[in-house]
Amino acid sequence: MKEITSAQNSLIRQLVQLKDKSRERKKTGTFLIEGIREVTLAIKGGYEVETVLFYPDLFPAESLDGLIPETVNPIAVSKDVYEKLAYRSTTEGLLAVAKAKENKLSNLRFKNDNPLILVAEAPEKPGNIGAILRTADAAHVDAVIIANPKTDLYNPNIIRSSVGCVFTNQIATGTTTEIITFLKTNKINIYSAILQESVAYHTQDYTKPTAIVVGTEATGLSDEWRNHATKNIIIPMQGEIDSMNVSVAAGILIFEAKRQRKFS
Amino acid sequence: MKEITSAQNSLIRQLVQLKDKSRERKKTGTFLIEGIREVTLAIKGGYEVETVLFYPDLFPAESLDGLIPETVNPIAVSKDVYEKLAYRSTTEGLLAVAKAKENKLSNLRFKNDNPLILVAEAPEKPGNIGAILRTADAAHVDAVIIANPKTDLYNPNIIRSSVGCVFTNQIATGTTTEIITFLKTNKINIYSAILQESVAYHTQDYTKPTAIVVGTEATGLSDEWRNHATKNIIIPMQGEIDSMNVSVAAGILIFEAKRQRKFS
Repeated sequence: MKEITSAQNSLIRQLVQLKDKSRERKKTGTFLIEGIREVTLAIKGGYEVETVLFYPDLFPAESLDGLIPETVNPIAVSKDVYEKLAYRSTTEGLLAVAKAKENKLSNLRFKNDNPLILVAEAPEKPGNIGAILRTADAAHVDAVIIANPKTDLYNPNIIRSSVGCVFTNQIATGTTTEIITFLKTNKINIYSAILQESVAYHTQDYTKPTAIVVGTEATGLSDEWRNHATKNIIIPMQGEIDSMNVSVAAGILIFEAKRQRKFS
Repeated sequence: MKEITSAQNSLIRQLVQLKDKSRERKKTGTFLIEGIREVTLAIKGGYEVETVLFYPDLFPAESLDGLIPETVNPIAVSKDVYEKLAYRSTTEGLLAVAKAKENKLSNLRFKNDNPLILVAEAPEKPGNIGAILRTADAAHVDAVIIANPKTDLYNPNIIRSSVGCVFTNQIATGTTTEIITFLKTNKINIYSAILQESVAYHTQDYTKPTAIVVGTEATGLSDEWRNHATKNIIIPMQGEIDSMNVSVAAGILIFEAKRQRKFS
């Protein structure tokens, strides 16, 4: 089995770039995954794994059997090397490099003709994106669509905060205009969460093909979403501050749709 | 007007401790607040402000008029001093020291005899606590109760991530046993969010006096909450991972109660 013990090794230096730099991920079309659950979910989710690295003191070589494809030759790394690549030196001892998916709108496939979709426009904080992807997995929505993404999906902070749900959801990205066209072409109702001129979310019927659209905490949704909505919806707020975490708002809206659909 | 230009000033050194150390906050019974909205909400929320500091380049002295009580003598600080105390040097230029509230269960007062209460057991991450407090403010719940708190409420990260909602909510803390006794004495139904032996959350009636109780993401709720619940409830999850952000789960449950109560 191949071993790498120097953090100065050229592959390791490249992987550090891959972890830290969106530009490097874009250039190579690959990204770094850390953790047993995360690597397992990526493989299950159809991601092609190119390289697997493990630190034998934390992750014994035998544990690789059945976990990774037989075509991949795993590389044992030293403590130094592992610490260079891992989020914390006490994590699970397993890393992988995988090919990014294209996440095209045209690749989305729906299980039936009544999809429930969550759209987030320009979300910024990896922690919020991760929480949204966890909610989308729990609700088993048909797709998550990111409009005008501000960050690439394979940012290590998104992978970590999604606890691997970035691999379990069907995800697409596109511009707001492209997504609105896609939704209209597919006859999917658009419910834009917006503060102005909107109706209370729980008065609407989400049992038909539905896309629920949320914007950023700072600026909300763009006018385009407001103008093209089937209905603009609002979560009634009765406190001192009109303020809710975006991933909490998305959860409330998606699970109201799930409740109306009787979780079927 | 008093001015402090040295970061070595003894008051400033004490305030740095107050910002960084829970122990110091406990010892003095005071805490540090940063930001215009945060200071305003604390004063509105009945917190007693002892000291106000401002950095005139970011926050002109005139702006203090009407914002802070007349009994408080504000102190102008230099850039150096401000940067020592502020989260980022580019923030709003306003800081205050306020007295902590006791947050006793016995101090809770309800507007009517049908309260809706959110209980969180041992929440850990300041970001999650902040998001929960924002949701609680938006839903205008009657109280937020923290069971077996792991951190003090006046941690600067909680104040910041709650965007000041730590000051707008009626909050109490206590042990799980004390809180269960309090809820039972006040004839408030307990709905414990739990994975085992539970019913789907949306099948229950939350229009009577209700406490919704959530645990930690890592270990869930303690047995005590399960054993003393009016009903154990679950959010049905249909994804690859049984995992949801705790603040998202709290939002879904609280807003189902709000929906049933017709947001009144």
